[in-house]
Amino acid sequence: MPTVIIAGAGLVGSLNAVFFARRGWDVQVYDQREDIRKMEHVPGRSINLALSCRGKEALEAVGLKDYIADRGVQMHARLVHSKDGKGFVRQPYGQPGEHIVSINRRHLNEVMISEAEKYDNVEFFFEHKVQKVDMRNKRLIASHKGQEVVVSGDIVLACDGAYSAVRRSLMTYPRFDYSQEYIEHGYVELNILPKNDQFAMEPNVFHLWPRGDFTLIALANTDCTFTVTLFAPFDLFDKELFDMENRRIQFFRDNFPDALELMGEEHVNETFNRVKQASSLVSIKCRPFTFNDFVVLMGDAAHAMVPFYGQGMNCGFEDCLILHEIVNEYNGDLVRAVRTYSDRRWKDAHTINDLAMYNYNELKDLVNQFGYKLRKKLDLSLNKYLGPTWIPLYSMILKWIRYGIATNVLVAGAAYIIKKKSEYQ
Amino acid sequence: MPTVIIAGAGLVGSLNAVFFARRGWDVQVYDQREDIRKMEHVPGRSINLALSCRGKEALEAVGLKDYIADRGVQMHARLVHSKDGKGFVRQPYGQPGEHIVSINRRHLNEVMISEAEKYDNVEFFFEHKVQKVDMRNKRLIASHKGQEVVVSGDIVLACDGAYSAVRRSLMTYPRFDYSQEYIEHGYVELNILPKNDQFAMEPNVFHLWPRGDFTLIALANTDCTFTVTLFAPFDLFDKELFDMENRRIQFFRDNFPDALELMGEEHVNETFNRVKQASSLVSIKCRPFTFNDFVVLMGDAAHAMVPFYGQGMNCGFEDCLILHEIVNEYNGDLVRAVRTYSDRRWKDAHTINDLAMYNYNELKDLVNQFGYKLRKKLDLSLNKYLGPTWIPLYSMILKWIRYGIATNVLVAGAAYIIKKKSEYQ
Repeated sequence: MPTVIIAGAGLVGSLNAVFFARRGWDVQVYDQREDIRKMEHVPGRSINLALSCRGKEALEAVGLKDYIADRGVQMHARLVHSKDGKGFVRQPYGQPGEHIVSINRRHLNEVMISEAEKYDNVEFFFEHKVQKVDMRNKRLIASHKGQEVVVSGDIVLACDGAYSAVRRSLMTYPRFDYSQEYIEHGYVELNILPKNDQFAMEPNVFHLWPRGDFTLIALANTDCTFTVTLFAPFDLFDKELFDMENRRIQFFRDNFPDALELMGEEHVNETFNRVKQASSLVSIKCRPFTFNDFVVLMGDAAHAMVPFYGQGMNCGFEDCLILHEIVNEYNGDLVRAVRTYSDRRWKDAHTINDLAMYNYNELKDLVNQFGYKLRKKLDLSLNKYLGPTWIPLYSMILKWIRYGIATNVLVAGAAYIIKKKSEYQ
Repeated sequence: MPTVIIAGAGLVGSLNAVFFARRGWDVQVYDQREDIRKMEHVPGRSINLALSCRGKEALEAVGLKDYIADRGVQMHARLVHSKDGKGFVRQPYGQPGEHIVSINRRHLNEVMISEAEKYDNVEFFFEHKVQKVDMRNKRLIASHKGQEVVVSGDIVLACDGAYSAVRRSLMTYPRFDYSQEYIEHGYVELNILPKNDQFAMEPNVFHLWPRGDFTLIALANTDCTFTVTLFAPFDLFDKELFDMENRRIQFFRDNFPDALELMGEEHVNETFNRVKQASSLVSIKCRPFTFNDFVVLMGDAAHAMVPFYGQGMNCGFEDCLILHEIVNEYNGDLVRAVRTYSDRRWKDAHTINDLAMYNYNELKDLVNQFGYKLRKKLDLSLNKYLGPTWIPLYSMILKWIRYGIATNVLVAGAAYIIKKKSEYQ
């Protein structure tokens, strides 16, 4: 049986492990972290994830869909909070019964690792930091407690995320196109704790405080907490929110009074003083995804995207499913499968990436054009009138796309993007 | 005096060394190659370089302009060779007396290193391969004969080329935007040797064999040889020119009979069999150019470009001049200077880069639209009629730009590019 080396035990890496384990192949997974199931606090990104159809389909193929979906929080509507903190507008998603599922990244990852470990032919190597691939000798180089570890196998699936070490070692590979682009907005994550052991707000909705060029969102977790995320330009973070404690609280009081009350001033201050700076959001595109019939880039390593389209994880899961289908198509011929994978996958990946960035840019433009000025005048009524035009950019929902605005765009390729947009709904 | 560490002893690195040596600062230059002045054959790129005004200005500032320009070959016109090898069209550059200078990369580099070495405060460390920068401790890490070498200084000027190791170690630096894009065309370099110790063709012209989607050029060297470069799509190289010796010679016979006669079939076959594949052409853009007040990306490390605008070296030389001027402006305050450098330089660098790529794309489009089909019918007369429309894309000349076609372009930013185009002439 072929040996599959997987770099990264995150969401995409562990789902890949399950897929290849079920195929009966030998699977080795290397990850720099210790086993997250044994950790008290997992560093790194923790934004809640919205599981939608593309991701569900992949989970279904390994029999995990219902198990996972049942452990998330269903969201049936968007709840737009007014600026004075006293009212809100409810916007249901699609038809009654339709919903998306808010999933906790860590919990999902733990379930997937445990699922993969059920198979005898899977082995996880934690605290093994992947360093690079050695293309000439077809090996993966990792380090474990200061020692170099050299791993041989038939294929490397690089699922080591947006800052992929495998990808970095391929930067000089002939004719490898690559781009990374950071956006002006960063984010800081906060929390709302339970109130008398209950959710402090309505749980089965996507909470949204849209305020023009900055926005607060909140998603419920199964432990009755909410993960709260503030998206804002780095300029605002740097000049107002990180340096000056009094202006920071005033900012929350002016814009998100109801959320501030639930989080508490102390928590807000403690969080900003602890994290020290906003996290950045990067969009990564590259081509090809396959190198020398040996390395395949998947998930964020291949196509990290900004979160405004809610498709990062879903797209990574779909990568696994598509590779699996292609390996089936070629009756397990790995060389032909990985060649086909790149050709078949890169265009879709670029398109989803573009859509996410496009939504972000559209937001900025709308704000510049009229949102920002109108906001001052219309205040509360803004959400009602403009809400349907731009709120969805932050709402991480697939179902709802603005064709009207998209068709105004004159840049080359817009027609293609719009076409793809409808395909991806 | 501050210590300047320069990564790379190529054209930009050694010019920087001269600039900072004249300032009286301590300069250390690290390069992975041995001293090229002692080498018989220098591997790597050897395309002749066209020195134009931007580059000359920088050389003038260190008193090298006339010395360098006198050692190149002046080119006063473009000579377009017909397909049957029996005729040509002469197209003078600008006004009588105006010319560009064809320079041999190696010779130029050797002169610059020797010039820098004249200063006591400059030291070259050859066979020291730069590995990365250690941003936290402000150090440069290199390796010399298997040993790690750690270098401290006040600033690192990363002039280590398109595949910069310094830049690669900065890939995860917060909010570093970066892209590398390869084009469909590659190139192979050939030679025409002297005939009875004389130039085998007219030396003071830019020789050009334009054939639609592939093109041959030839530039004279002072030793009476010509460097000949074939630009063609990788597909053509891979399918026709590298694999099949008989089709390769037939291809040259059909398209460049006069050039083939001068090069000789044996030389063509020997070259293709030796190099085994065409070299690729990459366009690199990034931002910022300055990191942590410590590292500055310059030359190809900051903005490698495709050669169709003839500005790669010239732009790199201009980088040196601009940094020098900014350091003057701030009376030697290095921290303020390097911050200003990135802000002042990145837009121009991106624009020149875009222009080079834009010229390449324009060529491809023209070929797709009518060039390729017309070529079959019009054959010889093509050069006469279409020549002025598209030949300059390959001619590496600044003076000659097609406004008419440029204004047809609807993509966002075209107006800016066109504006910059006129500024850069």
